[in-house]
Amino acid sequence: MSDLATTDQVLRLLLDGQPRTRAELIELSGLARSTVTGRIEELLAAGLVVPSGEAASTGGRPPARFRFNPTARLVLAADIGATHLSVALTDLTGEILHRSTTPLRIDEGPEVVLAAVARAGLALLREAGRSPADLAGTGVGLPGPVEHSTGRPNHPPIMPGWDSYDVVGRLGRELPGPVLVDNDVNIMALGEHATAYPDVDDLLFVKVATGIGAGMISGGRLHRGAQGAAGDIGHIQILGRTELCRCGNHGCLEAIASATALAAGLEGATTSQDIVDLVRSGNTAATTAVRQAGREIGTVLAAAVSLLNPSLIVLGGSLSQAGDSLLAGIRETVYARSLPLATTGLQVVTTRAAHDAALRGAAILVQQQALAT
Amino acid sequence: MSDLATTDQVLRLLLDGQPRTRAELIELSGLARSTVTGRIEELLAAGLVVPSGEAASTGGRPPARFRFNPTARLVLAADIGATHLSVALTDLTGEILHRSTTPLRIDEGPEVVLAAVARAGLALLREAGRSPADLAGTGVGLPGPVEHSTGRPNHPPIMPGWDSYDVVGRLGRELPGPVLVDNDVNIMALGEHATAYPDVDDLLFVKVATGIGAGMISGGRLHRGAQGAAGDIGHIQILGRTELCRCGNHGCLEAIASATALAAGLEGATTSQDIVDLVRSGNTAATTAVRQAGREIGTVLAAAVSLLNPSLIVLGGSLSQAGDSLLAGIRETVYARSLPLATTGLQVVTTRAAHDAALRGAAILVQQQALAT
Repeated sequence: MSDLATTDQVLRLLLDGQPRTRAELIELSGLARSTVTGRIEELLAAGLVVPSGEAASTGGRPPARFRFNPTARLVLAADIGATHLSVALTDLTGEILHRSTTPLRIDEGPEVVLAAVARAGLALLREAGRSPADLAGTGVGLPGPVEHSTGRPNHPPIMPGWDSYDVVGRLGRELPGPVLVDNDVNIMALGEHATAYPDVDDLLFVKVATGIGAGMISGGRLHRGAQGAAGDIGHIQILGRTELCRCGNHGCLEAIASATALAAGLEGATTSQDIVDLVRSGNTAATTAVRQAGREIGTVLAAAVSLLNPSLIVLGGSLSQAGDSLLAGIRETVYARSLPLATTGLQVVTTRAAHDAALRGAAILVQQQALAT
Repeated sequence: MSDLATTDQVLRLLLDGQPRTRAELIELSGLARSTVTGRIEELLAAGLVVPSGEAASTGGRPPARFRFNPTARLVLAADIGATHLSVALTDLTGEILHRSTTPLRIDEGPEVVLAAVARAGLALLREAGRSPADLAGTGVGLPGPVEHSTGRPNHPPIMPGWDSYDVVGRLGRELPGPVLVDNDVNIMALGEHATAYPDVDDLLFVKVATGIGAGMISGGRLHRGAQGAAGDIGHIQILGRTELCRCGNHGCLEAIASATALAAGLEGATTSQDIVDLVRSGNTAATTAVRQAGREIGTVLAAAVSLLNPSLIVLGGSLSQAGDSLLAGIRETVYARSLPLATTGLQVVTTRAAHDAALRGAAILVQQQALAT
């Protein structure tokens, strides 16, 4: 991995896909000719850069051009949910090349789940006709708080056996390259930002599913907070409410407006998908309940808007697929309860990256470290 | 200003105050010898770098050392409050060299107030025996939302005549160098961070005075939000409260827990200072009111802690000087209402930079642009 991890300005200048000559790279970087030449040799040797035709000659031998080679190495991206495992191979730009999804319960514990991640990843590599040595690294999303610097889950409420588990060490036994771990909502925010809104600097991604959480892009970068617990809006208390939450407190947003909370009050619904199906079939009770959940979530997001002043709130997670009811409820409260200044130009929309958001984001974790972007 | 604005890696390597030789600068920067040599000549000519003795010789002429010269240029910092104007001259590290404060009402409008800023700044320069040409730039804090990229106030509620006013253009007529403008709480957060907590990456600075606002350091950088309105926590609505706020809404935090709101309910108090004096004299009603205000502010900060997971909340503004009552009320609610994970290692403290925070922060605006740090 040292060839990738020590990446410098030369590779960074080529990441836009534009072929460039040695002279252009020297001028753009301000680096010494010998440094640039040596670096190009290393990148060519690693396959990360390939020759790309010749520039127009100004007399004499025409200068060679070089371009970034995004499939020189692959990234393994894993999105581990409460009840599923999705893995994908992406190129170094995060483009998904191959993928697979299987049912898997996170509460079977880290040994079982991470063995499945490695197995699924190695299977994808085989199917793609590539070797494990081609891996630039592995990015993993987990459904709970993660200390990003160590990759260890930090008191995750729905992941028995995972607290402080060495995810990096376990996967590193079977998969070459660095292993980067973050929580699922953070990687969804990264993936949504990179694929659908790369030019938006201040974005809040809100996942509404079994639980409720947010991922925050601030000044173009993910804000993880001091313990990796930023975005934990599901446990903000709603004044005057007393519903018991799975975290042990009362009146948490999650105990009022998550899919779990809604399903408990709706006949014929136990999962997010059931609720989505009821709403899509025109069931009035379900539609009303989802819209009210949107309003409750909106009271918390109104405060978040005053605090963060994002230009975009993106709604994701399984319950976001329930048509416009959730979005309408959220918009209603956010626009009514935030100052006009903070809502000028604020958009509240449903995810575009959808199911790809988490996998794309997991790949970005690796890209950011491996390519030092 | 071009000599400062085009600053590159060479100057940045010297900002730590450590003298370095040409060879060390070449090695540390990776830049070409000719680039480093040329840059040092320019910096010497601008006075930003000065010779600083010689390194130990390894045979032959001992190599010259160069160091950053922080008083080569000065920064004018202005903190404009609702009823006061403070200005200071600082060196390029933000150290305050000279200062003055005068009463001045922001509602006299931008022409009057900004003329006073320029006058006070030029007077300080004269007293310091320095020329206006020595100014590296001017940093200004205003008591309302500011679009930082243009320096124009953005619908500020207590600043009649200031909306969209061209502060940069007006001051630029009299003061050389760039003019950078931000809101007062943002510059207090910058100043507190730089002077007291430079190693804390995630910090929330909360100002409690006539109004209530917050400045947020995320990943070591100020988070301004999309319209420069981030941190506007004074207008987050407290569920179930109906007090009329000066913004026109009901139940805003500011209408319940600001110094203005408290003074209205306390005999013998009209200003923050009156309340602070009452608390310090042992007045029970004032102490109880301030503590309760702390609890109300705490409900909003508890949500902010869940969302941002800061490691430090710093309490500033005039009401923060009212002993421990405010702090105790805030701590009580924040620790009771946030998840244990987000409060692990969370500290809630009173400002250390105190009155200097705003001026230091205003100077940092200029430093960050001028020295490209």
